[in-house]
Amino acid sequence: MKIVIAPDSFKESLSALAVADAIETGLRRVLPDAHIVKIPMADGGEGTVQSLIDATQGTLHTTEVSDPLGKRVAAFFGVSGDQHTAIVEMAAASGLHWVDLDKRNPLKTSSYGTGELIQAALNLGVKHIILGIGGSATNDGGAGMLQALGAQFFNYHNQLITEKISGGILDQIARVDFSIIHQKFKGISVEVACDVNNPLCGERGASAIFAPQKGATPNMVAILDKNLQHYAHIIQQNLNTDIATPAGSGAAGGMGGGLLTLPHVQLKSGVQIVLDTVCLAEHIADADFVITGEGRMDAQSIAGKTPIGVARTAKQFGKPVIAIVGSLRTDYEVVYQHGIDAVFPIIRQLDTLPETLANARENLISTAQNVAKLMTLA
Amino acid sequence: MKIVIAPDSFKESLSALAVADAIETGLRRVLPDAHIVKIPMADGGEGTVQSLIDATQGTLHTTEVSDPLGKRVAAFFGVSGDQHTAIVEMAAASGLHWVDLDKRNPLKTSSYGTGELIQAALNLGVKHIILGIGGSATNDGGAGMLQALGAQFFNYHNQLITEKISGGILDQIARVDFSIIHQKFKGISVEVACDVNNPLCGERGASAIFAPQKGATPNMVAILDKNLQHYAHIIQQNLNTDIATPAGSGAAGGMGGGLLTLPHVQLKSGVQIVLDTVCLAEHIADADFVITGEGRMDAQSIAGKTPIGVARTAKQFGKPVIAIVGSLRTDYEVVYQHGIDAVFPIIRQLDTLPETLANARENLISTAQNVAKLMTLA
Repeated sequence: MKIVIAPDSFKESLSALAVADAIETGLRRVLPDAHIVKIPMADGGEGTVQSLIDATQGTLHTTEVSDPLGKRVAAFFGVSGDQHTAIVEMAAASGLHWVDLDKRNPLKTSSYGTGELIQAALNLGVKHIILGIGGSATNDGGAGMLQALGAQFFNYHNQLITEKISGGILDQIARVDFSIIHQKFKGISVEVACDVNNPLCGERGASAIFAPQKGATPNMVAILDKNLQHYAHIIQQNLNTDIATPAGSGAAGGMGGGLLTLPHVQLKSGVQIVLDTVCLAEHIADADFVITGEGRMDAQSIAGKTPIGVARTAKQFGKPVIAIVGSLRTDYEVVYQHGIDAVFPIIRQLDTLPETLANARENLISTAQNVAKLMTLA
Repeated sequence: MKIVIAPDSFKESLSALAVADAIETGLRRVLPDAHIVKIPMADGGEGTVQSLIDATQGTLHTTEVSDPLGKRVAAFFGVSGDQHTAIVEMAAASGLHWVDLDKRNPLKTSSYGTGELIQAALNLGVKHIILGIGGSATNDGGAGMLQALGAQFFNYHNQLITEKISGGILDQIARVDFSIIHQKFKGISVEVACDVNNPLCGERGASAIFAPQKGATPNMVAILDKNLQHYAHIIQQNLNTDIATPAGSGAAGGMGGGLLTLPHVQLKSGVQIVLDTVCLAEHIADADFVITGEGRMDAQSIAGKTPIGVARTAKQFGKPVIAIVGSLRTDYEVVYQHGIDAVFPIIRQLDTLPETLANARENLISTAQNVAKLMTLA
């Protein structure tokens, strides 16, 4: 019997690899001779770097970058085992978690640090970049990131803007020169994990939809939106590139749009990028069972979360899919319509949250063991 | 496919029938055409009356009796659907819950009310009595119960003792006359649900082992033990019956011993009495699956709890047994050695205890549904 174990991480508790290991331990108590393949998964959000490092026997790197307000901080990125691919989480450099609640202001935050992270990866010779863009503190259209990678922004006095570009100063840009950055990205492909389809501007744009959770007041939203419109206009004029209307251009404070100025960029579903990177379909093709999981399953799980991505791949081959999850909300049953055949939560008794998180490994082992027992009974 | 659902109640939450109903609801979502037989179970403890009423389409009766300290209270008992069998929980009349913490004193408590409950059942014409004896507040060797049913106890002045007999006055008994009660119990069989094997007296006796949790100080324990020895001596002298040494005679403050003075009494494992009463083996003989459950499963579950009794019966026929439980303690895995094939706890997320108890039905349905899904996948 071949079983593929392809879970996401359980947030605040276990990495995807640790989840897969625990599930394997439980299964092996019942099926000691099963052929078990573990594929740590992710959906492009938090944990994607670790999962893809684990899945590809890659390495974790740390480098100093600017946080959203310019403080120098240590941030991480991953490189795949074959050293061709860098995995970068925007939040590692430009995440909301870097900014104290009372300082959150997307007029002032810059994605510059994400550009530095990407530059550090390019310095290692990677040819492919996977970029997760969740959790950002910025609304700068990715201009800060582009600037760190060599894009040049000039003001109305035709002076190079040397300040790190933030959402509040996009209106000062009169002209751009992307020759250096375009040269740099020749032969470099970028896959951006993007699970929203918002445009850059307007009532469904980055500023209106995402900036409030980054600290923007209604007044700031209006300024930010106007600035992004100006920025898109200048880019269109100078580079003949539409960064304003493509689906996803409004993701991560317009990072989705800014990235479209690079030569070989694709915005894709995060879990699809991971599925492709780990070649999940190949592993599943000859499997008998697929086991996936995530920390919390609910109706939102069908919106681009890992288990559903795994399940859809499995269903292309008609394979049964079992999900083992940290917790399960009442509205979860819609997952049955997306390829999940059965779901088992792992909580065994009422404990405090910290105790429950600490028991996650033991609870996973126990649940996997009982799932295997029932699988072999029937 | 035939599935037998035979769970215990989930304490403080759902009756055994309600548990079985919820499991059926979950199973039917996946197996709408399955032949499902629901057998509410119990282990002789709390919930036994309700489960056996539900299992036999019986009736619940209420009558006024003396509580352990003589207050008149309303207590319940059950009569089976065929009206042959009464089901009595000693605790309904003589339970610790009737006595405030600061008044718990087994020198003063009497099992008289349990005798009144049994008398009320006999008045309805039952020929068989099932008596659960857990949770009692008494240490009177069952003398109070026997007295209520017509046994006569005389003091050293050869006067009939009219006071309700308690553990503290057993030493006043000089002689007994059981002719009335023996006449009454001709043709009446009694099965006592007894899951301990303690003798009446001594260091493993009723007083030493069980009286402290009923409020006895070490000094009281010494008096109670001496009184039970005296009582057993008088019974041996007058009735030529050994109530002191048989296994279980020390159960429920010596109730186990006192009952041995009746003509047709058996002390049996509580779950075995229930198994026999509901004819579980007959239902299981042609089943494909057996599903059981209890509120909390742990290593203690193998000591006479319902799921293990159900599992042992199922294993006589080689049937697979799945347990669905309210919570699952770390030490539960020993149940695998006693016939349980797989165990699934129902908790789906961390909530308060009251919320979790309130969600038990929904969680049971969900778990049963996923168990059925996995059963039909494999």
